[in-house]
Amino acid sequence: MAEASSKQEYIVGVDLGGTKILAGVFTPQLKCLGKVKTSTKAMRGPDVVIERVARVVEDAVDECDLKMDQVRGIGIGAPGAVDPESGKVIFAPNLQGWTDVPLKKELEKELKAPVFIENDGNICTLGVHAFELESKPKNMIGVFIGTGIGAGLILDGKLHTGFNRTAGEVGHMVLEVAGPKCACGNRGCFEALAGRQAIFKKIQTLVKGGEKTVLSETLGPGLEDMRSGDLRKALRRGDKLVERVIEEAAEYIGIGIANLINLLSPEVVVLGGGVIDALEDEMMAIIVETAHDYALQGTDKGIEIVPSRLGDDAGIVGGAVLAKRESR
Amino acid sequence: MAEASSKQEYIVGVDLGGTKILAGVFTPQLKCLGKVKTSTKAMRGPDVVIERVARVVEDAVDECDLKMDQVRGIGIGAPGAVDPESGKVIFAPNLQGWTDVPLKKELEKELKAPVFIENDGNICTLGVHAFELESKPKNMIGVFIGTGIGAGLILDGKLHTGFNRTAGEVGHMVLEVAGPKCACGNRGCFEALAGRQAIFKKIQTLVKGGEKTVLSETLGPGLEDMRSGDLRKALRRGDKLVERVIEEAAEYIGIGIANLINLLSPEVVVLGGGVIDALEDEMMAIIVETAHDYALQGTDKGIEIVPSRLGDDAGIVGGAVLAKRESR
Repeated sequence: MAEASSKQEYIVGVDLGGTKILAGVFTPQLKCLGKVKTSTKAMRGPDVVIERVARVVEDAVDECDLKMDQVRGIGIGAPGAVDPESGKVIFAPNLQGWTDVPLKKELEKELKAPVFIENDGNICTLGVHAFELESKPKNMIGVFIGTGIGAGLILDGKLHTGFNRTAGEVGHMVLEVAGPKCACGNRGCFEALAGRQAIFKKIQTLVKGGEKTVLSETLGPGLEDMRSGDLRKALRRGDKLVERVIEEAAEYIGIGIANLINLLSPEVVVLGGGVIDALEDEMMAIIVETAHDYALQGTDKGIEIVPSRLGDDAGIVGGAVLAKRESR
Repeated sequence: MAEASSKQEYIVGVDLGGTKILAGVFTPQLKCLGKVKTSTKAMRGPDVVIERVARVVEDAVDECDLKMDQVRGIGIGAPGAVDPESGKVIFAPNLQGWTDVPLKKELEKELKAPVFIENDGNICTLGVHAFELESKPKNMIGVFIGTGIGAGLILDGKLHTGFNRTAGEVGHMVLEVAGPKCACGNRGCFEALAGRQAIFKKIQTLVKGGEKTVLSETLGPGLEDMRSGDLRKALRRGDKLVERVIEEAAEYIGIGIANLINLLSPEVVVLGGGVIDALEDEMMAIIVETAHDYALQGTDKGIEIVPSRLGDDAGIVGGAVLAKRESR
């Protein structure tokens, strides 16, 4: 185990989400020394969010009794289309006002350490593949169901980012042409059907339409500040409305995964993100069954569909894996 | 230019489709010496279809004044999930009774020459990439709209087939969860919305429902034996019904391509197959516009969406490319 040293050897992984920012400090052996979380406050715009990212990184480093000049690199996953070379977030539908935001440049100015950015789905997939699966499967897909839905593709052993380096935008795969409106402007995207925002919105709409849920008791009639954990509690109390909405979301997730299996033939599909972390017991069986139902006969043989054990830490572990590779 | 020689140097490419079988004889430089076509007669079952493939290969070789012992290899694209190693067609929804059919073994017994099989979408993509695009784009997707819809993925310069070697089954990507029934058993698959069978079925259903089309004049009230070319003629005569159905199919194709762009970030998407060959002028503009509309902002920058110039020959050229590579 590494002891605190004055050398620039520590790495920081950051998970920048639509709802929260999580930063973790890691040794070069990817042992997590400590982490700090804050809310994103996305509605306040890019400048405020970037400042909050910088602050949470500094807080995490301080929390571990380290100084910023002991940090060799910071790896950040951002929710949207990212250009790792220019260090810009091209477009992030769940962060208000994020179009062509120079995240890397702004943060390096603030933090005086090398910053590496990637799409959050890619980062989480990198974390799961390199750390949890020890880089074993040659073809693996990570699907992360949080505020939105992100994914990353490990194809032939490597992270596939493609021509525009934006591959893996599975959240905007259309599953239902005339479906509900998505933050990206289209209709029927995977994340508009099965992401956390979609689940919450559906419950709120049904309740407005007169249906009953135990959630109204704790959250009030407007069902404000709902969290994935509230849904789990409601399910354990036998709430039929929440059960129906969660089952439907799990079916959409299964169909989305079947599309990925038909298209890419991965060996392993790993699921993560806040919704899966909170509702794994309730959703996984439906997801797996639906995915096998919808995969073309013969294409799903031997394919594993499993939840990640990294939970909320997939993003920061992946950020650390990225920063470690890139700052060599 | 190669002259006929007694050496085993010629290659045969075969396109086994749901409607027809096309075989072409090629020199080692991939010059086509001649081709022969026959109907598939899929409803007669695998044994008959395999016999028809063997016959059309022999006929094509004979047509070019060659003998089977001058053939060094035969490359075949089959419409469905294929295992190139075992040489089996695992499942082909558009060929009746094709589950675990040992196509390679049966044909080698019949033809006494090495046979190599691949999924038809993969084969056509290989043909377009290696021959038409001279292997230039590192990331390219071929989408072929025929009886069904097939695709192939060139990722990082290589054909991506994945864990079960079944990647590219884009025809069974669900685009509309509650959509029309597909031959695979699911609903709302890409090919059940935009493949030739889907287009024909939609026109027939609308006409049964009382709508009018000029197609009834030439094909009779049941609209039997409809071909893609009939649709083109109807469009040129200003047929509103056919126009509506073709526009809708083009929109679905655009949405399907947007899903592929969001997911894989290719540099080029090449479209081919009988429907595109017949209706390129009517469909391409709508396809391109819809694909850009549905691609997540920033992900479609610089991406080309173009029709293949190989037309009906993409499958046989790809078969020849495969046989040439594999029989080295």
